Amino acid sequence: MPTSPEPTPGFAKAWSGRLEGGSNPTLEDYTSSLQEDLPLAPFDLEGSRAHARALARAGLLDADTTVKLLAGLERVGDELAAGSFQFLSSDEDIHMAVERRLTELIGDPARRLHTGRSRNDQVALDLRLWAKQACWRLVEAAAGLQGVLLARARRERLTLIPGYTHLQRAQPIHLAHHLLAYFEMLERDVQRLRQCRQRLDLSPLGAGALAGTTLAIERAAVASELGFAGVTGNSLDAVSDRDFAVELVFDCALVAVHLSRLAEDLILWNTREFSFVSLPDSWATGSSLMPQKKNPDVLELVRGRAARPISSLMGLLTVLKGLPMSYNRDLQEDKHHLFSAVAATEASLLALTGLLAEVRFNRERMELAARDPELLATDLAEHLVAHGVAFRRAHELVGQAVRQAEERGQKLDSWLRSSWRELGLPDDPDSSGLFDARAALARREQPGAPGPSATEAALREAAARLRRSRAWVTRQRR
Amino acid sequence: MPTSPEPTPGFAKAWSGRLEGGSNPTLEDYTSSLQEDLPLAPFDLEGSRAHARALARAGLLDADTTVKLLAGLERVGDELAAGSFQFLSSDEDIHMAVERRLTELIGDPARRLHTGRSRNDQVALDLRLWAKQACWRLVEAAAGLQGVLLARARRERLTLIPGYTHLQRAQPIHLAHHLLAYFEMLERDVQRLRQCRQRLDLSPLGAGALAGTTLAIERAAVASELGFAGVTGNSLDAVSDRDFAVELVFDCALVAVHLSRLAEDLILWNTREFSFVSLPDSWATGSSLMPQKKNPDVLELVRGRAARPISSLMGLLTVLKGLPMSYNRDLQEDKHHLFSAVAATEASLLALTGLLAEVRFNRERMELAARDPELLATDLAEHLVAHGVAFRRAHELVGQAVRQAEERGQKLDSWLRSSWRELGLPDDPDSSGLFDARAALARREQPGAPGPSATEAALREAAARLRRSRAWVTRQRR
Amino acid sequence: MPTSPEPTPGFAKAWSGRLEGGSNPTLEDYTSSLQEDLPLAPFDLEGSRAHARALARAGLLDADTTVKLLAGLERVGDELAAGSFQFLSSDEDIHMAVERRLTELIGDPARRLHTGRSRNDQVALDLRLWAKQACWRLVEAAAGLQGVLLARARRERLTLIPGYTHLQRAQPIHLAHHLLAYFEMLERDVQRLRQCRQRLDLSPLGAGALAGTTLAIERAAVASELGFAGVTGNSLDAVSDRDFAVELVFDCALVAVHLSRLAEDLILWNTREFSFVSLPDSWATGSSLMPQKKNPDVLELVRGRAARPISSLMGLLTVLKGLPMSYNRDLQEDKHHLFSAVAATEASLLALTGLLAEVRFNRERMELAARDPELLATDLAEHLVAHGVAFRRAHELVGQAVRQAEERGQKLDSWLRSSWRELGLPDDPDSSGLFDARAALARREQPGAPGPSATEAALREAAARLRRSRAWVTRQRR
Amino acid sequence: MPTSPEPTPGFAKAWSGRLEGGSNPTLEDYTSSLQEDLPLAPFDLEGSRAHARALARAGLLDADTTVKLLAGLERVGDELAAGSFQFLSSDEDIHMAVERRLTELIGDPARRLHTGRSRNDQVALDLRLWAKQACWRLVEAAAGLQGVLLARARRERLTLIPGYTHLQRAQPIHLAHHLLAYFEMLERDVQRLRQCRQRLDLSPLGAGALAGTTLAIERAAVASELGFAGVTGNSLDAVSDRDFAVELVFDCALVAVHLSRLAEDLILWNTREFSFVSLPDSWATGSSLMPQKKNPDVLELVRGRAARPISSLMGLLTVLKGLPMSYNRDLQEDKHHLFSAVAATEASLLALTGLLAEVRFNRERMELAARDPELLATDLAEHLVAHGVAFRRAHELVGQAVRQAEERGQKLDSWLRSSWRELGLPDDPDSSGLFDARAALARREQPGAPGPSATEAALREAAARLRRSRAWVTRQRR
Repeated sequence: MPTSPEPTPGFAKAWSGRLEGGSNPTLEDYTSSLQEDLPLAPFDLEGSRAHARALARAGLLDADTTVKLLAGLERVGDELAAGSFQFLSSDEDIHMAVERRLTELIGDPARRLHTGRSRNDQVALDLRLWAKQACWRLVEAAAGLQGVLLARARRERLTLIPGYTHLQRAQPIHLAHHLLAYFEMLERDVQRLRQCRQRLDLSPLGAGALAGTTLAIERAAVASELGFAGVTGNSLDAVSDRDFAVELVFDCALVAVHLSRLAEDLILWNTREFSFVSLPDSWATGSSLMPQKKNPDVLELVRGRAARPISSLMGLLTVLKGLPMSYNRDLQEDKHHLFSAVAATEASLLALTGLLAEVRFNRERMELAARDPELLATDLAEHLVAHGVAFRRAHELVGQAVRQAEERGQKLDSWLRSSWRELGLPDDPDSSGLFDARAALARREQPGAPGPSATEAALREAAARLRRSRAWVTRQRR
Repeated sequence: MPTSPEPTPGFAKAWSGRLEGGSNPTLEDYTSSLQEDLPLAPFDLEGSRAHARALARAGLLDADTTVKLLAGLERVGDELAAGSFQFLSSDEDIHMAVERRLTELIGDPARRLHTGRSRNDQVALDLRLWAKQACWRLVEAAAGLQGVLLARARRERLTLIPGYTHLQRAQPIHLAHHLLAYFEMLERDVQRLRQCRQRLDLSPLGAGALAGTTLAIERAAVASELGFAGVTGNSLDAVSDRDFAVELVFDCALVAVHLSRLAEDLILWNTREFSFVSLPDSWATGSSLMPQKKNPDVLELVRGRAARPISSLMGLLTVLKGLPMSYNRDLQEDKHHLFSAVAATEASLLALTGLLAEVRFNRERMELAARDPELLATDLAEHLVAHGVAFRRAHELVGQAVRQAEERGQKLDSWLRSSWRELGLPDDPDSSGLFDARAALARREQPGAPGPSATEAALREAAARLRRSRAWVTRQRR
Repeated sequence: MPTSPEPTPGFAKAWSGRLEGGSNPTLEDYTSSLQEDLPLAPFDLEGSRAHARALARAGLLDADTTVKLLAGLERVGDELAAGSFQFLSSDEDIHMAVERRLTELIGDPARRLHTGRSRNDQVALDLRLWAKQACWRLVEAAAGLQGVLLARARRERLTLIPGYTHLQRAQPIHLAHHLLAYFEMLERDVQRLRQCRQRLDLSPLGAGALAGTTLAIERAAVASELGFAGVTGNSLDAVSDRDFAVELVFDCALVAVHLSRLAEDLILWNTREFSFVSLPDSWATGSSLMPQKKNPDVLELVRGRAARPISSLMGLLTVLKGLPMSYNRDLQEDKHHLFSAVAATEASLLALTGLLAEVRFNRERMELAARDPELLATDLAEHLVAHGVAFRRAHELVGQAVRQAEERGQKLDSWLRSSWRELGLPDDPDSSGLFDARAALARREQPGAPGPSATEAALREAAARLRRSRAWVTRQRR
Repeated sequence: MPTSPEPTPGFAKAWSGRLEGGSNPTLEDYTSSLQEDLPLAPFDLEGSRAHARALARAGLLDADTTVKLLAGLERVGDELAAGSFQFLSSDEDIHMAVERRLTELIGDPARRLHTGRSRNDQVALDLRLWAKQACWRLVEAAAGLQGVLLARARRERLTLIPGYTHLQRAQPIHLAHHLLAYFEMLERDVQRLRQCRQRLDLSPLGAGALAGTTLAIERAAVASELGFAGVTGNSLDAVSDRDFAVELVFDCALVAVHLSRLAEDLILWNTREFSFVSLPDSWATGSSLMPQKKNPDVLELVRGRAARPISSLMGLLTVLKGLPMSYNRDLQEDKHHLFSAVAATEASLLALTGLLAEVRFNRERMELAARDPELLATDLAEHLVAHGVAFRRAHELVGQAVRQAEERGQKLDSWLRSSWRELGLPDDPDSSGLFDARAALARREQPGAPGPSATEAALREAAARLRRSRAWVTRQRR
């Protein structure tokens, strides 16, 4: 961000009356938050416009001054939007940059804008407005990924794939069931983000530096004009509270962990050894040295980038721990951590959504793996249970059979067909569908289970939830 | 925890059919989670009793076996409660220890208990039952601290104290207002804990290892019997989901951060330099070397121990990040982090509650500090604004006055009384109460501000919230 | 740890002169560090013995008292070692428990032991003695794993395996080369641990509470008797410095990260899909539900447990950040984090060493995968370069060939043999060994490269380093 | 950073032969590391120049091509330095941006530069070169702060100040002793940074993608030309090792923790309540609302910004944990965390150096506090010990005296003068200097203690160390 070194004639630091001489340049560089404040700009202007109107209603600004202020703020907003706004190295932060520019544009009326307001409540306001938007944008992005998960799951409701535990093939499931597990995780994320959004929906404006103001500015009216559900309940807390930022970063961290797990699954499936998925060329990258490579870089970055919100969360908690009341400048560090976490999470959601929409599922490979007869060992044990064998005994018998088959180099089903009688069972395993993965799934139709009907129900439920999330996003963005 | 090395005759590892020979002793030591599982024991038994009844309802256990199982589980519970339960070094975890002991006690029926269940859904169940209790216990402890904050605030509603920003005296407030800022923080914590509790209130039992069971066990009935609001929606997710643990640990981390801030305030106030509070001897510790010392160890530990849930949060997120579907043994690590975080947080809440109830507030010292005339500089500037001076100009004028008074070695009020006319103001500062801290507070009666009536309203609101939290806790513990 | 509630007659809290009445029981529970102090006990006794002798040399103890003190400390040590030491709930920490028991055993002389010493320098001493031992024990454990890596590498110096980047097969290497990569990581860990050990090798005893002592106790002599290389240089720093603990925990965290990577490799190799390794039954675990499962739980725990030192590191840094000078009770939390990190790291080193010694490498599967002709695409491009083609052009040509072969469903080598002329090359690919993995490795003999001779050299170098580390450990343990 | 969307005619992605069609734009945005790579640019060019010369020596480039390449790289460097380099949105990273621009400038010869090199070893090289510089820059900055600590300590060698434990006044020390405690901490930081620098001083170039190269490029010669002490020992490790980055970030985290402690001390000392220091106006900031405020924002930011390297450390460890061999794209995230940590740490070092050089110590206030007679209670107890009283008894007696004085509202020295006989001591406390802080310090002259001569010795030792560090920095920057 280019800044110009000359100070503005007639505009001084907010505290120039109190402190003598200029600031040390190292201090200016070190304390400036301009670079990190930029995303706050539109919210700062929105807040200042509402504050100006409130000052007017309180009789603290006359009509003419109010009109000039609002017009000036409009122009500053235009300059910022157009990228023509010229920052100075002496601008401490976005709030002072805006006020400085406003002073250049409209002169004296600008000096009345900060009436009854401190940067402490101003920055808390800006940050809450920013966070409210971040919440619905993240919900929107999460719902986008849920939408793709749902769409892909619908097409793969009958695709067999091994379910894994300990990264060992365990039991056959449908690919849809696997994809919907991620839908569930994201659904919890969405709920957390919505609750975070609701909890932070209180306007801190009017808390002043820490003790409110003596001027008759109506807090509730400004809050309502800015779309808040209410006002904060304690002025000390209002200026030093960053719980909403930490909570939002935590919500991001958990989203990112979920994405990292999905990325890990896809990276594994994309290995030559699994070969369950193929990446389209447009979603893969190559090697600068090895001509044959086709690498899942996006997935690896989703996995690696999950560390950003986690690190931001640790950063923010570290900033807050042990901080005395009330506002301390340490809080300036909030933006560094918050903005990085939200940006990384949103970008990863979008990237994974794009990739997942186009990844190819290699159904034959998945089904081949899922039809491994060993994956039905549990069903076999439960079949014995249904014939009265105690479960532990059944588990033991089937475990021995697996070992014997392995020692003889036979497939479990072949071995069992030949040794079936020894288990003392009357019926024929094939007639009971005991070696058939589809039959095994048809036996699993309880709520939450991977059977075909249960999966249909889960798909319907997912669609309904998704509609609700999307409707919420629409309401939030007005 | 003493363990005995001899294996139980007739009881084998759960998987003894499949794997040949014994386990390597290093493996046994390294993989055992017995030490950390202990808090799960009562929940494991509760879950097993409900599961046994469900097996009976499904016709998988006859009446006699069911009775034996329930009685056996009762006896195991008694032994655990009495501390007479003898663990073996071959017990892998609490679940197998219980089943092993059950087998010793009742023989064959015990071998039927694990029917239609896996340790994967069993441990998920136990952990959720534990977490539900942890949620309301934490809310109870937080409400306890809120109760003391409220009680102390009530008695200090008119005690003056400087409000600080940047640890510099800023404006006078009431001590009650300062204490209520912490009430607010804890109130958000309570809300988060309640929502966490609600989100995790789904029974995973029936998810099996990852793909449910083929047996006709009714998930909803067991869930309801165990007091859950419903069942989990996806079996893969159910066995690999630890979001509820991470969320609970995060909630603890934020509670702990709040406590660390309160501890920091009290540590500062307890210094010779501040002398705003005195610790009763029963809440202080001495030095082994320096005979004169009276140290606030509890407060320092509250501050330092806040690092535990923060570190646990980092640990848990690290465990989960990049983990492939579904259950992986890495998840065993959840308890280490979760239990440590909850225990530290609950203990700190209780310790701080005890101390805060008995700390002495040195009102004279607080009031002396709060009556520093510089703390009314803002009121002065706003007074100029009310007389039409632009705020930035007013700020500058008062800032200069502060500097001039400082240079002359005068108190701000003395200096201003002598230079009042130069500010061009008609009325007399004393007649306007401009140098009177109480008058300054009386001018601050907006919602959330520190004025006396606003504080009264805040106290009433806090009491109402506290009643609601306590009623909730009562409902939770049944 | 069982504690008995009765106070010892005639023994009082260290500060009983200063503070009136008893401590609050919540305070006692909350501030006691007994549970976590236990590993310090032998070091506390060692330090006290040296201190007693120093007091005697300084004329502060007469001969009789000295003899009684040393004998008493011996007896306390015996009780602790035998497990017969009876802790009381009023014992604040291990230091006071020892002194209390000493008083019971020998009476008045015990009251002279704490002369010229504070718990602040005493606990710093104990912790440094503990940490010194932890350093060499960790080096010993790391060298143990390096030894197994080296032994296995020696036997697999000619076993082919694909080298992976992005988890995609990249180029053929030898398994030995892969194993030696982990040797390198651990070698850096060893170096860090040795430097940490050297940096902390200064005795803090004599720093007193923060300002030394007025008594004529020779610091250097005590330090030397305790095996320290010197004494700390600033008494304030000496009692508040926990850098050595943080550094040691960091070293553990990096060891653990390395182990987690090796565990991840082995987990992947142990999947049905890779099948590069098999776990012996004694190093695998089964499933409680699924009879066919054979799970790599140890490896998963190594991976998951890596989160412990990472979380401890976060915890310890959080404790220290922003702490004012000098000793603050927050520092008590150091042990919780330090001990957990070291224990987890040492246990994981030992577990992985045991497993790696016995894992079976499936050479045929590895070699089959390594002989995939695509893995030689880079060699082909470099062959073109050797014939004067610019590298980017060569890369492009080979890349196209890979794509064409893929589109035609042909292996790369078959396709290239048929289209060789089109690349304009005179010689025959097979005569140049271009499709032969072993020939490819023979072309890679630069330092650090995976060729057979380079690997031999690396094995020799590794053996020499290992000898040096082991000799160092022998010196450390005296 | 402005980028232009048009692709360069005749320049294609590194892997354009292998993958068909263009990349998805979301992929390009998401995977691009251009923004974060910029600090690597000069090192990338330095590495490429050395590599080009090595290719020439190996006979892989003719003289003409070599000259063109070196000249072209020079021009690219000039454009980057001048800010005229035009990035394209299709540039994946700095390496490809440089090569793309080189191709535009010199055409075909540019296509030969990447011979025998992969981005995997290239980026590892660039990052190590960057890290080497970061190490000495941090040492330089740390030595700068040590220099100011030393200079201020020299002037305050006889200034009394209370030494604190638990933030309670404990014993009198000299301000110099307090300042030198920070010198010690930084000295350990310097040692760690120097060892980190030494450990990473190995060139990875020649490791290729993971398995070296078949071309006859001499690794050792290139390493030496680039100023490395040697070459890495294992090609797999070389491309996937980021230990040096984690270690450097850890070193930063510990520096930052030390700075946060110093900042905390100064923030406390700068409160009205302590008033031990005053900030010059040029190092303070004011309030936007409260005209009287003079805030220590720099110090608060130093404290809060310590969270950055801590968070980066957590981020980097999270990226690496569980990553399979060898290079994975997750590693791109290293720069985000590493650069942020180093920048924050260096900036905080410089800011605190500047501030500390100009802060005013209020000697009268410090001395007044240090002369509190209670601070000599320990000396009194040790005086009793010198007269044969057992220490615990002496401690008790003095503790009671403190309590009695407190109850009577007397100063400890007054009370003791009147009750001296009761302690059974022959001599007069004043004649022994027992109530004189300076005499107390004169009794503390052991190594590391705060006595005047011991402080002189510490000052000399510190000066010697500082000279050594500065000489080292001079050698590093050549």
